[in-house]
Amino acid sequence: MHKAIQILGGCCSSGFVSHRWKPHTGSGLPFVSISAKPLSSSLSRLPSNSSLLAMSSARLSSRFGAFRSRAGHSESNPVGASSSSSSSSVAVQASGSVLKINFCQWCGGPTKHEIPEGEEKIRAICTVCGKITYQNPKMVVGCLIEHDNKVLLCKRKIQPSYGLWTLPAGYMEIGESAAEGAIRETWEEATADVEIVSPFAQLDIPRIGQTYIIFLAKLKKPHFAPGPESSECQLFALDDIPFNSLAFSSMLVTLNLYVEDVKAGRFKFHYGTINKRPGTSPSDIHAFTLDGHLQS
Amino acid sequence: MHKAIQILGGCCSSGFVSHRWKPHTGSGLPFVSISAKPLSSSLSRLPSNSSLLAMSSARLSSRFGAFRSRAGHSESNPVGASSSSSSSSVAVQASGSVLKINFCQWCGGPTKHEIPEGEEKIRAICTVCGKITYQNPKMVVGCLIEHDNKVLLCKRKIQPSYGLWTLPAGYMEIGESAAEGAIRETWEEATADVEIVSPFAQLDIPRIGQTYIIFLAKLKKPHFAPGPESSECQLFALDDIPFNSLAFSSMLVTLNLYVEDVKAGRFKFHYGTINKRPGTSPSDIHAFTLDGHLQS
Repeated sequence: MHKAIQILGGCCSSGFVSHRWKPHTGSGLPFVSISAKPLSSSLSRLPSNSSLLAMSSARLSSRFGAFRSRAGHSESNPVGASSSSSSSSVAVQASGSVLKINFCQWCGGPTKHEIPEGEEKIRAICTVCGKITYQNPKMVVGCLIEHDNKVLLCKRKIQPSYGLWTLPAGYMEIGESAAEGAIRETWEEATADVEIVSPFAQLDIPRIGQTYIIFLAKLKKPHFAPGPESSECQLFALDDIPFNSLAFSSMLVTLNLYVEDVKAGRFKFHYGTINKRPGTSPSDIHAFTLDGHLQS
Repeated sequence: MHKAIQILGGCCSSGFVSHRWKPHTGSGLPFVSISAKPLSSSLSRLPSNSSLLAMSSARLSSRFGAFRSRAGHSESNPVGASSSSSSSSVAVQASGSVLKINFCQWCGGPTKHEIPEGEEKIRAICTVCGKITYQNPKMVVGCLIEHDNKVLLCKRKIQPSYGLWTLPAGYMEIGESAAEGAIRETWEEATADVEIVSPFAQLDIPRIGQTYIIFLAKLKKPHFAPGPESSECQLFALDDIPFNSLAFSSMLVTLNLYVEDVKAGRFKFHYGTINKRPGTSPSDIHAFTLDGHLQS
């Protein structure tokens, strides 16, 4: 019932890591083994000359040096993870989150926290009606909007990450598709009427129970303006993207992958997992490894 | 606060539809317009000779004729949608689901159902501590396992869809990535130790608040056996896939897209939305349109 993670190499140097997923025999839970190979280039932003995407293997990972401590996640933390717990405490985090569910939302009865018959994880079970309250990861959907070889970013007018730049994105709602949600969020945050072009990235962040789904999109009309949660919206040429003032790790990864794809001349679909480095603050957007990077 | 959907053409014929997403001016909520163009081929299963994937446009949709009434969704319905509500009642469904939240899971206080300040949807708000209980779509993660030009399917030993075939898949848990979840589910349902090859499909089902994330995978050892929820696991050649005995719409779409990609000689990443046809039962796995199909 645990993840074992090995990370070799200096904590502040950059590197690509090999990555292996393996089911943990008997429990059915995954065992993750990661070992790092040092890279010479700096990854304060992803380097254009040692591209993630130029690697021959479809199974790549990058590890970023930790520096700068601004920014955090735009959304509330659904697992209630503390800011300094290690990657190996995933199961404990999940249990901790479950332990915060004290009452049944349907009948109001007090809950007990046990592993239900036939399951493997602790759940909140109502002591009156018996219903189980499940918790699952949430999807954050957004758009990477291309216009005249530039990308549209919004400066946040709300916490967390007030004053930092992000792609328009937010929680997907029940009753809408991911594409519809991404269009809605873009309208709300940038008053931009967009058309979805293609799926671009899925980035999981297991520690905080979030999955980012990002689409490439284009403006249907050359108009945008800050919505209530943005102080500014601006088109940036690729060389001018404010990589030092981004709000979230997910946006850092997305924009770097985008720049790499533009340089390579072909857009791919990217899947990967953003694992925060043990012992670092969630607000440090550079303190993570991008693991299990796959492309289609 | 609604989706307007136009579907032209016979309800039991197949067809490709053009699809346009447009934000609903002012509300920020999406407006969906769909118009169908008839296709000559039958889509009782997706036709190999009039391929979705062979279409030149990246924005495609297919509409399937409705027949056969077996099977339903493997997972409980997080939005509590009734079995016969129309596509245009999405907002009402979401509200209906929220209305089932009667108590605060943190303090046990009774909830009120109102639109919070700065939001647009009715939420369950605790009258004691003021916390809002948000509901979001859930991810179902699974593997399409290729072995010797065959795919691995599991026959369900549980309801719903008892006795019907599915890819190994289940709800993603907090603390794991989608890939880890897909590997775990494959181990649990097919006792198969797999390696993820690439992301293959994301299929949203807005009406029931589910998003399917399917990976291509391969066996690390040539071994599989039914887990507790399966009565049988079997490798099927593409021509032998039991399209008439599949458990879920999502699996029907996934396997058809897979067959098309195999025939085209290249795997793509597919994104699309499965919209159940108004007035049909959720258990009718053929009564849907695949809208906004995009490929990378």
